[in-house]
Amino acid sequence: MIGTAQKIAIEKTKTSKITSVDFDNLPFGSVFSDHMLVCDYRNGAWEAPKIMPYQPISLDPSAKIFHYGQSVFEGMKAYRDKDHNIWLFRPEDNYKRLNVSSKRMAMPELPKEYFMEGLKTLLQLDRDWIPQSEGSSLYVRPFIFASGRGFHASPADEYKFIIATAPSGAYFSSGKVKVLIEETYSRAANGGVGFAKAGGNYAGQFYPTQLAVEKGYQQVIWTDDNAHEYIEEAGAMNIFVRIKDTLVTGPVSDRILDGITRKSILEIAREEGIPAEVRKLKVNEVVEAAKNGTLKEMFGAGTAAVVSPIAAFGYRGSDYDLPQLEKSYASRFKKRITDIQYNRSEDSFGWRFKV
Amino acid sequence: MIGTAQKIAIEKTKTSKITSVDFDNLPFGSVFSDHMLVCDYRNGAWEAPKIMPYQPISLDPSAKIFHYGQSVFEGMKAYRDKDHNIWLFRPEDNYKRLNVSSKRMAMPELPKEYFMEGLKTLLQLDRDWIPQSEGSSLYVRPFIFASGRGFHASPADEYKFIIATAPSGAYFSSGKVKVLIEETYSRAANGGVGFAKAGGNYAGQFYPTQLAVEKGYQQVIWTDDNAHEYIEEAGAMNIFVRIKDTLVTGPVSDRILDGITRKSILEIAREEGIPAEVRKLKVNEVVEAAKNGTLKEMFGAGTAAVVSPIAAFGYRGSDYDLPQLEKSYASRFKKRITDIQYNRSEDSFGWRFKV
Repeated sequence: MIGTAQKIAIEKTKTSKITSVDFDNLPFGSVFSDHMLVCDYRNGAWEAPKIMPYQPISLDPSAKIFHYGQSVFEGMKAYRDKDHNIWLFRPEDNYKRLNVSSKRMAMPELPKEYFMEGLKTLLQLDRDWIPQSEGSSLYVRPFIFASGRGFHASPADEYKFIIATAPSGAYFSSGKVKVLIEETYSRAANGGVGFAKAGGNYAGQFYPTQLAVEKGYQQVIWTDDNAHEYIEEAGAMNIFVRIKDTLVTGPVSDRILDGITRKSILEIAREEGIPAEVRKLKVNEVVEAAKNGTLKEMFGAGTAAVVSPIAAFGYRGSDYDLPQLEKSYASRFKKRITDIQYNRSEDSFGWRFKV
Repeated sequence: MIGTAQKIAIEKTKTSKITSVDFDNLPFGSVFSDHMLVCDYRNGAWEAPKIMPYQPISLDPSAKIFHYGQSVFEGMKAYRDKDHNIWLFRPEDNYKRLNVSSKRMAMPELPKEYFMEGLKTLLQLDRDWIPQSEGSSLYVRPFIFASGRGFHASPADEYKFIIATAPSGAYFSSGKVKVLIEETYSRAANGGVGFAKAGGNYAGQFYPTQLAVEKGYQQVIWTDDNAHEYIEEAGAMNIFVRIKDTLVTGPVSDRILDGITRKSILEIAREEGIPAEVRKLKVNEVVEAAKNGTLKEMFGAGTAAVVSPIAAFGYRGSDYDLPQLEKSYASRFKKRITDIQYNRSEDSFGWRFKV
């Protein structure tokens, strides 16, 4: 166990890459900061975390990550305010969810100190990598994967917990997101791993998403695998709709990720008196509402995408445009959340976490 | 494109590990041969495969395999007969299935020559690693994973195709396999990736399998995720039952892997005049047959496990023992298949492939 940040050994880079980065034109998640945190699980215990220069990882070809997809991750963002304070958004929720995911994937849970102190120490060291421009942030990726060896299809005996960070711009390069309601492919099974941030959940979405992209959509909205009757989630985002003035989103389940942005939106709605319903949402209800003009908004919510208004959705060969509202719920939630994240407003919820 | 084995560059090991291996006491898939084949996909094309000493792989921490589980694999075995000829079993079917899996995981298909010539060259080089004792073989693991960088949840731009091999004993250390018919957790969704040999399919099974192991079972028999009404597969094996004298197995689907041992058994049954039915198999039918004594056998079929008789199954808190038959279908199929694999019999099917 580690008690304080001081106990994390730090090996600093000799040559910072920071001057080579164009902070005004940041892509998403493809430029990496100088350092990373690495922590090995061996002989039934997590060893002390170390911070070292961002560098390649060496693994045996039989490491189970390559063969059996045993991995979990979290997505977070670090923000810097005008006074150069560093902030995270609800990091303990990421910590809890990481362990929920790990349990489902038969992976060892991580002690809280390793996660929280590791984050703080790494972010303080690489603080200059946190962008300050609007819409940019330091994307923080804690992940755990099976490094133990062997071709037997069973849990590994060794794991690596790593935190790597990437100064990033917007997740969607275009502001206008057009989605396809999917009825052939599925993301998750009842009793499966859909609620976990497990690696394999994402690879399975790539091919159906490619097919949707070929038809002119950016993302797929997944429906239940049984009858494709209900809206589930969008893979990297939970989905909200606004019918008349009521906000609706599906309940979390063993198929649907318990998104931190999703639940923050529900809490803001409650506080602001926006009528919100968490209930199973039929595709038919959304299509009917689009047809009769009561569907006012549709948006995705997730750490990477924040709040992403959906401009149109496709269903059974038809496209349905969403109205462009002056005062949308999406922009209201986005402003409220990002104002808290960047320390531009009060935080009555206690979500902001000072690093 | 490569045309012949000669074009595969070979870097031989300077120090063979073979003398350190106890070939009379081989575990499954945890001792690795001297060499491996590595082939990189970059800039939209597969580069020439190389054979090199078995060694660690170096990857960027943002390699998509760690984050999004983009990986596929195959399981094969190489056999050596008394005249030291090397044999594979239906390798072209593994090649085809690898590409079927890759397509579903949005990964590039591999040219046939790379797979077949790569296998042959590697196996000839490491021929002394192929065990000759009954029940042992060289387990061959071709796999492809996403090595390309980036935290964006989208397909990688670089991949590695590797073939590694491991001299191996039996997959199940005990001959008596007891399975649990699962009704809470599920392996695959309709429209999902269950038919693919994709890494994430396996990690998702570990936790439910651990729970079953704690209750005294070795494996889980998966049922459909909708109502848990039908027998699907066992994760590393397809499932067969024998009711009276009729063999029954479920149809392959987008949830069930098209097993090579499975289809070989069906072909043998057809040739030998054993009545066989490929149809949806209700859990209730199996339980009823166990109760009224018409359930004669239950066995798993897969490359690693070959044909594994199931001694008992658990369902809703009760255990059902299977009879111990003198002349079981399982032993008949196992003998027929392994006789072909080890070149101890004629091969009227044309399944044996000389390396």
